[in-house]
Amino acid sequence: MNVVVLSGGLDSTVCMAVAPKPVLALTFDYGQRHRIELERAAAVAAFYGAEQLVVKLDASQWGGSALTDERIAIPNEGGEGIPVTYVPARNLIFLSVAMGICEARDADAAYIGVNALDYSGYPDCRPEFIESFAATAVLALRRGVEGRPVEVRTPLIGLSKAQIVQLGMELKAPLQLTWSCYRGGPVPCGACDSCHLRAKGFAEAGVADPALEQ
Amino acid sequence: MNVVVLSGGLDSTVCMAVAPKPVLALTFDYGQRHRIELERAAAVAAFYGAEQLVVKLDASQWGGSALTDERIAIPNEGGEGIPVTYVPARNLIFLSVAMGICEARDADAAYIGVNALDYSGYPDCRPEFIESFAATAVLALRRGVEGRPVEVRTPLIGLSKAQIVQLGMELKAPLQLTWSCYRGGPVPCGACDSCHLRAKGFAEAGVADPALEQ
Repeated sequence: MNVVVLSGGLDSTVCMAVAPKPVLALTFDYGQRHRIELERAAAVAAFYGAEQLVVKLDASQWGGSALTDERIAIPNEGGEGIPVTYVPARNLIFLSVAMGICEARDADAAYIGVNALDYSGYPDCRPEFIESFAATAVLALRRGVEGRPVEVRTPLIGLSKAQIVQLGMELKAPLQLTWSCYRGGPVPCGACDSCHLRAKGFAEAGVADPALEQ
Repeated sequence: MNVVVLSGGLDSTVCMAVAPKPVLALTFDYGQRHRIELERAAAVAAFYGAEQLVVKLDASQWGGSALTDERIAIPNEGGEGIPVTYVPARNLIFLSVAMGICEARDADAAYIGVNALDYSGYPDCRPEFIESFAATAVLALRRGVEGRPVEVRTPLIGLSKAQIVQLGMELKAPLQLTWSCYRGGPVPCGACDSCHLRAKGFAEAGVADPALEQ
C-alpha cells in the first residue's frame, strides 16, 4: 500500500492518479479558511475507491499564514520572495504524519504532489527539502532501523504546471473535481497565485479547465 | 522566545527548567490512553508561568502503538529491540509542529527532552535523528532561507536518568508534578518500562521520588 497526501487540488489529484494502488488518501483538516478543498479531496478519494483518513490539526492555533489566519489578507498573484500564503512547516508536518501512518500501516511509500517549477516559492516544496526529509525519516522510523525505509515520492517535482495537466489528462484523473483557489468563494477567484498558476498550466497545455465548465 | 515540547513527564519538565525563558510550552493531546500526563503538563507550564499551547492530533486514528491503541497491551519492563510502546514518528511529528510554531512566533529554538542513554530504544530519540531533523528544518522553513535557522536543542540527550534527576533537583524543577507511568492508574504502576527507568534514576541519584511521597 502507498499513502498519498491529498488536498483536493490539481497537483495532489494527479499524484493520486500516478501512485500505484491500493492507496490510502491522507487529507489534513488544518484550520484552512474554507472547507471546499476538503469536500473535493473526499470526492477524489471516492473516485479512486480509496480509503481516506482525514487528520485534524489546527494550525490556526499558531497562525503565521494568510491561509490559516483570517486577519492576513490573501494577495493577488505576484510579488517577490516567499508569499504570505506560505503555511509554516506545512509539508514538514504533513510528511511527518504520513511517515507515522506508513509505519503503522506498513505502507512502502508516501506520495506528495509538490512541484518546484510553476510554484509559489514555498521552501518546503523544493527537492533539497524532500531529499533531506527522506533521510531524516529513515532515522526516525522502525522501518528505517530494520532496513526497509519508507520512501518519499514526488512524481511531479520536475514538471511544469502544463505537464501536470497533460499527465492528469492522460491518466484520466478527475480534474473536474479539483479546487485550487486560495479563496473560498462559490467559484475560483481567478486572481490569487494558485488560480493564476492553474490557469497558466491549462492554457499552456491547450486544454480547457474542466472545473470551470460546470 | 523558545518553544519546549512538554509532556508532563520527568525529562520534559527538566527541559522546561533548562530552557531560557520566556518559553512557550507545547503539549500534544495525541490520543494517548490516559489524561494524567496532560494534567501534569498543564501544572508544570503553570509552575513556570509559561503560555501553553495544547495541540490535538489523534494518532489513535492510525495506531501502531500500545500507547495509542487499547488493543495492544502495555508490557512490563524488559525485552529486546524497539518496544510496542514506540509511537510511530512521534518525535518527528512533534518537532515538525514545533518548527511551525517557532516560525509563526519567531522563536529561536525548540527544546525537546529526548535522551539516548537510559531510554526505551525508540529510534526517534537518537542524536543522529535529531541532527538530521535539524538540517531538514533549515530547508523547510522561511527562517532557514533567511539565514536565521530555528535551532533544535536537546539538553538531556547525553545524560543518564540519574543525571537528569540531579539536574532537575539543582534547578528546583517541580518533579513532584511529573508523571512517567505508561498506565493511567491512580498511582504509577511501578512495572512498566517508564516507571522502571524513572525509579532507577532516582535510586542512582540517591533521591526519593517526590511524586511518590504525596
